Amino acid sequence: MSQLLTVQAGAVAPPWRVERWLNAAQPPTLGALRGRVVVLHAFQMLCPGCVAHGLPQARALHATFAGEGVAVVGLHTVFEHHDAMKPVSLAAFVHEYRIDFPVGIDAHDGADPVPLTMQAYGMRGTPTLIVIDRDGRVRLHAFGRVEDLVVGALIGRLLGQASG
Amino acid sequence: MSQLLTVQAGAVAPPWRVERWLNAAQPPTLGALRGRVVVLHAFQMLCPGCVAHGLPQARALHATFAGEGVAVVGLHTVFEHHDAMKPVSLAAFVHEYRIDFPVGIDAHDGADPVPLTMQAYGMRGTPTLIVIDRDGRVRLHAFGRVEDLVVGALIGRLLGQASG
Amino acid sequence: MSQLLTVQAGAVAPPWRVERWLNAAQPPTLGALRGRVVVLHAFQMLCPGCVAHGLPQARALHATFAGEGVAVVGLHTVFEHHDAMKPVSLAAFVHEYRIDFPVGIDAHDGADPVPLTMQAYGMRGTPTLIVIDRDGRVRLHAFGRVEDLVVGALIGRLLGQASG
Amino acid sequence: MSQLLTVQAGAVAPPWRVERWLNAAQPPTLGALRGRVVVLHAFQMLCPGCVAHGLPQARALHATFAGEGVAVVGLHTVFEHHDAMKPVSLAAFVHEYRIDFPVGIDAHDGADPVPLTMQAYGMRGTPTLIVIDRDGRVRLHAFGRVEDLVVGALIGRLLGQASG
Repeated sequence: MSQLLTVQAGAVAPPWRVERWLNAAQPPTLGALRGRVVVLHAFQMLCPGCVAHGLPQARALHATFAGEGVAVVGLHTVFEHHDAMKPVSLAAFVHEYRIDFPVGIDAHDGADPVPLTMQAYGMRGTPTLIVIDRDGRVRLHAFGRVEDLVVGALIGRLLGQASG
Repeated sequence: MSQLLTVQAGAVAPPWRVERWLNAAQPPTLGALRGRVVVLHAFQMLCPGCVAHGLPQARALHATFAGEGVAVVGLHTVFEHHDAMKPVSLAAFVHEYRIDFPVGIDAHDGADPVPLTMQAYGMRGTPTLIVIDRDGRVRLHAFGRVEDLVVGALIGRLLGQASG
Repeated sequence: MSQLLTVQAGAVAPPWRVERWLNAAQPPTLGALRGRVVVLHAFQMLCPGCVAHGLPQARALHATFAGEGVAVVGLHTVFEHHDAMKPVSLAAFVHEYRIDFPVGIDAHDGADPVPLTMQAYGMRGTPTLIVIDRDGRVRLHAFGRVEDLVVGALIGRLLGQASG
Repeated sequence: MSQLLTVQAGAVAPPWRVERWLNAAQPPTLGALRGRVVVLHAFQMLCPGCVAHGLPQARALHATFAGEGVAVVGLHTVFEHHDAMKPVSLAAFVHEYRIDFPVGIDAHDGADPVPLTMQAYGMRGTPTLIVIDRDGRVRLHAFGRVEDLVVGALIGRLLGQASG
């Protein structure tokens, strides 16, 4: 996927193109979350690194910071094994792994295996961690594992900044 | 599942009722494996304890003892979320998690959610670890996590015993 | 040690009473570190929780944030087994565990088993993690394990605050 | 220490040369332990690999197999930092780390930094794991980390063998 352009830090976060939400009475949008720090965790349910590291970190972020102005949002960006990770499978996965934050299913457009939000952000694979500031700008875009100290420090810094 | 009878240590291991095998040119059978120590690891691909502990242990057993007369066999015993864990999903899971020993899909009979081999062995859930000696008798039947030292010691003892 | 008063968040950090420094060409002081965020990690070399969690966290903090205005300082607060943890033992420990930030040996006053800096800060045991802001005020005083996300977030917030 | 000859598997285990025992009402000897499987764990209290892996494994071996004919014995083989790891320090270490099996302090002869039992067994460093069968013969001599499955399998095999 070398042709993908990665959304750089500082750029305005593109809108999410989601075909269905789990764990969300109200579909979250970047607009509605303006003023909060947003952690977008892009994963695939059959990606071992997501299950071992990325999702536990996302759960910990939600448990630690949900009450302090941080919104954690999962994004199921299926770009391979599409038949293996359909919504019915994802729903059972979310239930069994006790994921309690909203999870969106990234939408596909026709035959392209890479889903639309994944394309818009230029993600290279899963897990990808994206942190968006109170003003809707991307502040971190990382493929693979990011240490808790580093993620925590960025969130602390962004929480300390006023919006606007 | 309190009605299930657990196959006790010492009992003859019931035959496997498998509807399809992955990673097996030749479907393994207890008969063909007579003379070897058999480790049967029953799991579900969406069971967190299986993914975190059971399957890594099964992989390590295969990597460590396959050349010494131990046969490691996986059994996908789906008793819940049936639509979420169909063969196409399991195949992708086995690929992504680099599972390189044979995995059988436990067969269902009509409407009973509990598959047939799971019933025959009286398993209470997943993960379940079953160790069978060279003569086809069950020597360990454990639900949940079993420490490597304990599994290793049993295998070492059984490998040291001649077939009867 | 229930008689000890804990230095609360917001209070001015008391000066360090150190009898000898390891890994420090120049003995660090709070005054000289004014303007930086200071992480003070109080430990004992024979405290299992310090070795398993506290010191690895302190090392990671130093490796991650030393270039960004954070000073990590170790403090060997021996309040039991004094004969077992003398400077010669600590020096070998620091060498073997590859601790590369300054470590001060908290000073004792006569027969009191609790050393002076430990008393001044009202520490209840080891490990204790103390975070001091750019203005020399205590912002965290925690006995036991603190998650990396939490420590990271505090440091990020403090780094984002101007001094003064 | 390339001049050291390692005691090979199959050789008779040399006697232990211990200057003092901790956790032992009666000093253990190979003669008195004949008929049991003996696990000798050689360590230094300031060796990070011993603290992180070797000693926890030795504790687990003791907890798991002490009632089944296995004797776990620690050996403090100080060959560096001698002043840092004197008996008073070791005693505090054994207390703090809840080591509850006998620990012998390997004896030194004059100026040689390498202690006598370490020399007799040809150990190359710490941790070293030595497993001795019921007849007093060395069956494993391993420097560094050994997986639990492998240690367990060896112990299981040796427990299954009659003495003599």
